[in-house]
Amino acid sequence: MEKLKYTVITGASSGIGYETAKAFADRDKPLILVARRKKRLQQLKQAIRQKNPNLEVLIFPVDLTIKENVYQLFSDLTIYELETWINNAGIGMYGGLRTNDLQKTEHLLQLNIEAFAILSSLFVKDYFSKAGTQLINISSAGRYTIVPNAVLYCATKFFVSAFTGRDSRRIDCCWCQHASQVISSCCHQNRVRPDSSEHGYL
Amino acid sequence: MEKLKYTVITGASSGIGYETAKAFADRDKPLILVARRKKRLQQLKQAIRQKNPNLEVLIFPVDLTIKENVYQLFSDLTIYELETWINNAGIGMYGGLRTNDLQKTEHLLQLNIEAFAILSSLFVKDYFSKAGTQLINISSAGRYTIVPNAVLYCATKFFVSAFTGRDSRRIDCCWCQHASQVISSCCHQNRVRPDSSEHGYL
Repeated sequence: MEKLKYTVITGASSGIGYETAKAFADRDKPLILVARRKKRLQQLKQAIRQKNPNLEVLIFPVDLTIKENVYQLFSDLTIYELETWINNAGIGMYGGLRTNDLQKTEHLLQLNIEAFAILSSLFVKDYFSKAGTQLINISSAGRYTIVPNAVLYCATKFFVSAFTGRDSRRIDCCWCQHASQVISSCCHQNRVRPDSSEHGYL
Repeated sequence: MEKLKYTVITGASSGIGYETAKAFADRDKPLILVARRKKRLQQLKQAIRQKNPNLEVLIFPVDLTIKENVYQLFSDLTIYELETWINNAGIGMYGGLRTNDLQKTEHLLQLNIEAFAILSSLFVKDYFSKAGTQLINISSAGRYTIVPNAVLYCATKFFVSAFTGRDSRRIDCCWCQHASQVISSCCHQNRVRPDSSEHGYL
């Protein structure tokens, strides 16, 4: 029996991550779903299994703003064979430097930049030479246009897009031998509304 | 007697920071010089004082890759009145994700992004409304053109430039009421050669 090849999605409990999980499930891709909220992940798993009862869906409730958790997650996943890694987890934040809470600023940088860069690095180190694997990074329209009241958030997405591809408006091959993609969502007009209210950052 | 108004320069021990310190000294600006290497700072102070014996030059040997040091530095400086804050400290790094050392990656992110964002935030919180103050952030030509073998470094400079100004090719007023500037240096053809060899990152 062929070994399952999983798709990992961070930030899968809501928004783009949630919809991406359902889209990959529709393509019969075994899933590893990562997010802070266990209950949300369980609900998503249940929804997917109702439609596709035989699909393998694993959930990992992890807070990726804590660096140790980032390394632990990847270490925990080494027993699985991965096909696709989707860095979707991210926090939004409105506000200016004068008023921004510094702890929230730190969380934003830890998740949107540090966890993102570490997980990308770990995945590429292990999977660069494996045919059929891909790294997909979710960016934002804030990568192209600085939203005046969300400059810090937008700057993290400039980082994500620059990191991912030389010209990140198109699918570009930069890090992975096979595929590395950056996908942008529009923070004002996207069809998938990020569930930012519960983070308290937007 | 009027209180001295200091110019703070991070990463002052070499490269652009070093030359910037001398340039501000030539304009009789009292200096607070920050870098890891105490001896280099002492030598710079000595060189400045030989030319301008009465100029106030304070040195703060600090490793800004450690977050606690970042906050401690700013706290230590609250007893001084600041006029200009120059975020120059940064690490360069060549290499691809497959081969990059993860500890060096973390240091790069901690210094080029986290320390930079925290110090910018702290300065703006305290000085936004004070006339004549300015925040100057040093970026890189790597903000405009991704250098193929230094993508991670370049991505940090995309962050710096996006964070600093809406259109960072020109001097732009984004965070500070009075002035906020982003200055780019070219990592291949700049006149001021960064002293990267000692960091072991280039």
